[in-house]
Amino acid sequence: MINTLIKNIQEKNAPIVVGLDPMMNYIPTHIKESAFKEYGETLKGAGEAIWTYNKGIIDATYDLIPAVKPQIAMYEQFGIEGLIAFHKTCEYAKEKGLVVIGDIKRGDIGSTSEAYAVGHIGKVQVGSQTYQGFPEDFVTVNPYLGTDGIKPFVDVCKKENKGIFVLVKTSNPSSGEFQDQMVDGRPLYELVAEKVVEWGSECMGDTYSNVGCVVGATYPEMGKVLRKLMPKTYILVPGYGAQGGQGKDLVHYFNEDGLGAIVNSSRGIIAAYKQDKYARFGEASYADASRQAVVDMLDDINGAIGRK
Amino acid sequence: MINTLIKNIQEKNAPIVVGLDPMMNYIPTHIKESAFKEYGETLKGAGEAIWTYNKGIIDATYDLIPAVKPQIAMYEQFGIEGLIAFHKTCEYAKEKGLVVIGDIKRGDIGSTSEAYAVGHIGKVQVGSQTYQGFPEDFVTVNPYLGTDGIKPFVDVCKKENKGIFVLVKTSNPSSGEFQDQMVDGRPLYELVAEKVVEWGSECMGDTYSNVGCVVGATYPEMGKVLRKLMPKTYILVPGYGAQGGQGKDLVHYFNEDGLGAIVNSSRGIIAAYKQDKYARFGEASYADASRQAVVDMLDDINGAIGRK
Repeated sequence: MINTLIKNIQEKNAPIVVGLDPMMNYIPTHIKESAFKEYGETLKGAGEAIWTYNKGIIDATYDLIPAVKPQIAMYEQFGIEGLIAFHKTCEYAKEKGLVVIGDIKRGDIGSTSEAYAVGHIGKVQVGSQTYQGFPEDFVTVNPYLGTDGIKPFVDVCKKENKGIFVLVKTSNPSSGEFQDQMVDGRPLYELVAEKVVEWGSECMGDTYSNVGCVVGATYPEMGKVLRKLMPKTYILVPGYGAQGGQGKDLVHYFNEDGLGAIVNSSRGIIAAYKQDKYARFGEASYADASRQAVVDMLDDINGAIGRK
Repeated sequence: MINTLIKNIQEKNAPIVVGLDPMMNYIPTHIKESAFKEYGETLKGAGEAIWTYNKGIIDATYDLIPAVKPQIAMYEQFGIEGLIAFHKTCEYAKEKGLVVIGDIKRGDIGSTSEAYAVGHIGKVQVGSQTYQGFPEDFVTVNPYLGTDGIKPFVDVCKKENKGIFVLVKTSNPSSGEFQDQMVDGRPLYELVAEKVVEWGSECMGDTYSNVGCVVGATYPEMGKVLRKLMPKTYILVPGYGAQGGQGKDLVHYFNEDGLGAIVNSSRGIIAAYKQDKYARFGEASYADASRQAVVDMLDDINGAIGRK
């Protein structure tokens, strides 16, 4: 699956991913009103509003981008109806030729991780039949439980040609509390990075591994070190835009081949119409504002990495 | 919510929790056949079989136990239909007076953790209405992202009188890979434990905190140390039974008040009928076998901690 992601990135000259993390206050009023008129102010109404909102953004941006990254928490908070919207969003993005990175940050003991892997990037057995629970191409995974919590995901990646991104150094302010703790003179996240390389070595694509990692845009110095430590590991980079990261900070997340990193922006793209910069589009044309924000993000990042 | 859990434990003299982690191969043939006859070998059929199976176990054991711990991965692997079975199971357990510990091991950056917290132990806003996405009383939480990934859960606990169990030292074989790494002469899991105490101090029940932790039964020496480090933290103990832990290993997970720990068994209870020891019950009476396994587990643990 990493081969497909790289092909998409190269064809569109776009090392970016749009984070579909809908919050109710991002969704334009006309979409909410229409959904609530049909289903009431219910969980189903919320799910419908989210789905309509996402579809607008996908329709307006899919020709420019290689992938989307729906954050499942934003759907899960609305229970079953939210997860139906998540499922529909993933399916629709795939119909549009996009790679779907499910930002699920799952991770558990072996048999449980296996169930998550099967449910999100594999197939589950029901009697003599098999089904996809959820239809992602990649998922994000939490490494705190160690190898036996990760291996079941890697096994499913091998079997189904899918991929994962393992959390190494996250973008949030307190990520250092445990991740930066020094172990034998080196931060814990470097130990995690070494394991990522080991796990990834058994699941290689043509040039990069199907086992990628997550390193936040907000820690560029660490990103630089980690890039060298994991030359064949694709880095999913959250924290661009609303969280503070900029294109110039991200140069060292890329390899000399111009590949090796894919930068996520969520709020900065999907709620662009709320920024002064894009206010001219107006709420009704929120999706056009998102498209312009994608164009600007590509300018910023491709400019910084000399890819234009 | 910790007060309610403790009250349940004391009334039933049962410091245990039954892990509702259904696997298709645990479910008796007659239940699967009946579900597949109605819905086919579909995800809906699987969800129906899981729900019927769980209901049987709850009906046969609820008077003996304080709580159940459904592992969401085992439901999530069947997609939306599996999660409907999860939701029904949680609701039904609550109707029977049980505390529901959702084993979800979520954890993310702040705004995302907030969505998980709202979705599982809080209430989500839709227009002028509020709803519960999923109806758990406690959830398990992964600490790898640090304080700002945990605080949103604690805030919801305070607001809604709910609780969490933070992973400190997990029961699986490779849990030591990162959790045991030495930081300034102390294992990382002790640093996490100290943070758990800090987070928990703002969310106290009468004698214990609503912020508990997870320490596996498979590491009794570490459990002993952690017990002393966190005197007011309830410990959720996985790894009993099928994973190898026994009552005698668990003595030091409890405080002198006979409280402070709740021991989980999943497979050992819900698939008891598959063990030689309970084969006499037969597949059709799987729930009676589960009841007997609960009785035996209580004997073992209450015996070991001198609580009989």
